Amino acid sequence: MRIAVLGGDGYCGWATALYLSQKGHQVAIVDNFIRRKWDFDLGVETLTPIRSLRDRLQAWKDLTGNHIDVFVGDMTDYAFLSAHIRDFEPDTVIHFAEQRSAPYSMIDREHATFTQVNNLVGTLNLLFALREFKSDCHLVKLGTMGEYGTPNIDIEEGYIRIEHNGRADTLPFPKQPGSFYHLSKVHDTHNIHFCCKAWGLRATDLNQGVVYGTMTDDTALDEALINRFDYDEIFGTALNRFCIEAAAGHPITVYGKGGQTRGFLDIRDTIRCVEIACLNPAEPGEFRVFNQFTEQFSVLELAQMVQAAARKLGLKAEINHLPDPRVEAETHYYNARHSKLIDLGLQPHLLSDSLLDSMIGIALKYSERIDQSVFLPNVNWRNASNNRNGNGRLRTPAAALIQSGV
Amino acid sequence: MRIAVLGGDGYCGWATALYLSQKGHQVAIVDNFIRRKWDFDLGVETLTPIRSLRDRLQAWKDLTGNHIDVFVGDMTDYAFLSAHIRDFEPDTVIHFAEQRSAPYSMIDREHATFTQVNNLVGTLNLLFALREFKSDCHLVKLGTMGEYGTPNIDIEEGYIRIEHNGRADTLPFPKQPGSFYHLSKVHDTHNIHFCCKAWGLRATDLNQGVVYGTMTDDTALDEALINRFDYDEIFGTALNRFCIEAAAGHPITVYGKGGQTRGFLDIRDTIRCVEIACLNPAEPGEFRVFNQFTEQFSVLELAQMVQAAARKLGLKAEINHLPDPRVEAETHYYNARHSKLIDLGLQPHLLSDSLLDSMIGIALKYSERIDQSVFLPNVNWRNASNNRNGNGRLRTPAAALIQSGV
Repeated sequence: MRIAVLGGDGYCGWATALYLSQKGHQVAIVDNFIRRKWDFDLGVETLTPIRSLRDRLQAWKDLTGNHIDVFVGDMTDYAFLSAHIRDFEPDTVIHFAEQRSAPYSMIDREHATFTQVNNLVGTLNLLFALREFKSDCHLVKLGTMGEYGTPNIDIEEGYIRIEHNGRADTLPFPKQPGSFYHLSKVHDTHNIHFCCKAWGLRATDLNQGVVYGTMTDDTALDEALINRFDYDEIFGTALNRFCIEAAAGHPITVYGKGGQTRGFLDIRDTIRCVEIACLNPAEPGEFRVFNQFTEQFSVLELAQMVQAAARKLGLKAEINHLPDPRVEAETHYYNARHSKLIDLGLQPHLLSDSLLDSMIGIALKYSERIDQSVFLPNVNWRNASNNRNGNGRLRTPAAALIQSGV
Repeated sequence: MRIAVLGGDGYCGWATALYLSQKGHQVAIVDNFIRRKWDFDLGVETLTPIRSLRDRLQAWKDLTGNHIDVFVGDMTDYAFLSAHIRDFEPDTVIHFAEQRSAPYSMIDREHATFTQVNNLVGTLNLLFALREFKSDCHLVKLGTMGEYGTPNIDIEEGYIRIEHNGRADTLPFPKQPGSFYHLSKVHDTHNIHFCCKAWGLRATDLNQGVVYGTMTDDTALDEALINRFDYDEIFGTALNRFCIEAAAGHPITVYGKGGQTRGFLDIRDTIRCVEIACLNPAEPGEFRVFNQFTEQFSVLELAQMVQAAARKLGLKAEINHLPDPRVEAETHYYNARHSKLIDLGLQPHLLSDSLLDSMIGIALKYSERIDQSVFLPNVNWRNASNNRNGNGRLRTPAAALIQSGV
């Protein structure tokens, strides 16, 4: 199968591209390297030292004999994107190429607007390019469980049957996204759904939970293939950050009470879920939604699991409850359906002591690269004007160091 | 009350600005005149000859003594918009300033992307400007009944109580918008809702039906105050176009079977609904939704009413069923709640013979200005690439004439 991985230089995209290449598919990576630029902008780095895409792909070829094509450019540039679709003729496009951090989108107006315009225009361009040049291509789009928010009823997979005043219909599940980033994903969802109906495109929306872990069988082959391991407040996800905090002897930073419950999954399940979607495409005209996570945890439960694993390794691992910078319920009902990918064959890697050991182990291995100043949240959901200092720059600790010339 | 009318040079905005000025409010019009430019782009004109904003406002002042402030600029320019909010300090902002035509948004990729980015960025800028400079200001935002689509259950006003697996919650009503324009309104709705929750802003979303009519007591005072009367396929709404078609002796153009049922209202009710929203503001943090229409009709019912009224005036008024260029159900269930504005005091002007007589009368009065070539639909929802001719320009009849140099 010819598969284009948009955003293939990023965290999930890289692991996915290697996995599908190893499975024998003809893979192309499309990327504009903006994820690397955001690290420069914010003054942060992934814990693991990642190489240039060129070096990574050369190592992959040397180790496995598999070639991955590269198309360097920006999805918001229609001429570039449509030429890629026309030239590569993908059977499947996997679309990871969006600004995917909620805190980033909440920094200020510029970051909010950038996130929404970037994600919305890139996806619109892709829809028009598919319609024009490859209308039978299957679009596999990364959404997020955060589109649903935390309703007081069970969350279904994309749609819900509603009975009302003696009539019934199956309708899109109501969305209550909690940041400008999550909002951008809801906008995408509505746009893609419409294009499936209007033009007969076929799409699978993967509403992914919070991903943890860094190693897959493929990235573990060689250090040149290592994946990102982000732990800063902007791009680091909860479990990854907790493991690195524990390894650094820093308290584990839980926002508020930690009763925020979400769906989580191992990155090894991310790549398998995406593969399942590719191998079982939506029908023409169908907009299909899978909830892509394997287990639910509260943030405090995760913190306690990391704490227990860290203590077995002789680490201190205290838990600190910080004021919650986000606008979210700190305790709430949460029960989300996630059976469609299981029905199609997913066998989850559940969160285990050995996985936590391995993550903390990686953190210890690269402990000299840990920058503790990026653990603490500086982006406040309620008061975005405080997220910049007097001269209009972002007020992250690392950024402040850079700005002051240290 | 200090009221800013964004888009105050347009069809609904102009009538609203005069009405609120006549009621004694201090009104400012904010506009970038892009609505007039779109007419030039498309090679069409409103039936009624509208004057420059300067001349209109001078006439208003001469006739009533009321002064209306003008701020010329674009909402997507944050420096302009935030300066306006800071300088004018509105108690209420009424936001009409969006690209509001579904066919326009379906012309091609450029028009789709323009519509969504323009509407989304303008509204985001407004939200940030209010938060920064006037956070207690009441935002009255024009949405559309088209956000809901045509579900097979009764449509509620913004929210619906859902019982599911033994639990219940009141959630945003699911949205099924039917064009890139309608999608842009759904994106706005989600963004505004979030900002009310996150920042405590207060907003009323008026999900308006299809507006008809052109005269209000204020615009009728003098021909210099006359309002737009659009009848082209891009900006003309169904009833207005039908009246002009009948006056021109052209068949009334119904798309498909005409079973498409929608909510409609008289422009005199639009301005009263907006006034009611202003006088009864949402609470801080509240995102309130009113369905703003007074009667439901199928398109064929409207066509038959126009036909009957026209025949009494001795006009031929045949009804032509054209292939439906839109992607929509031609017959469907439709029942939408619209009691909140009634509860707050709206007394509807129901569609009547005398109103139809008056509309056809205006069409006859200006019959020399009727351009029959713009009646027929050229924008096809399914096949947007056919909406442009070989050299990439829009394929409307009038535009074609301009392009060929006639």
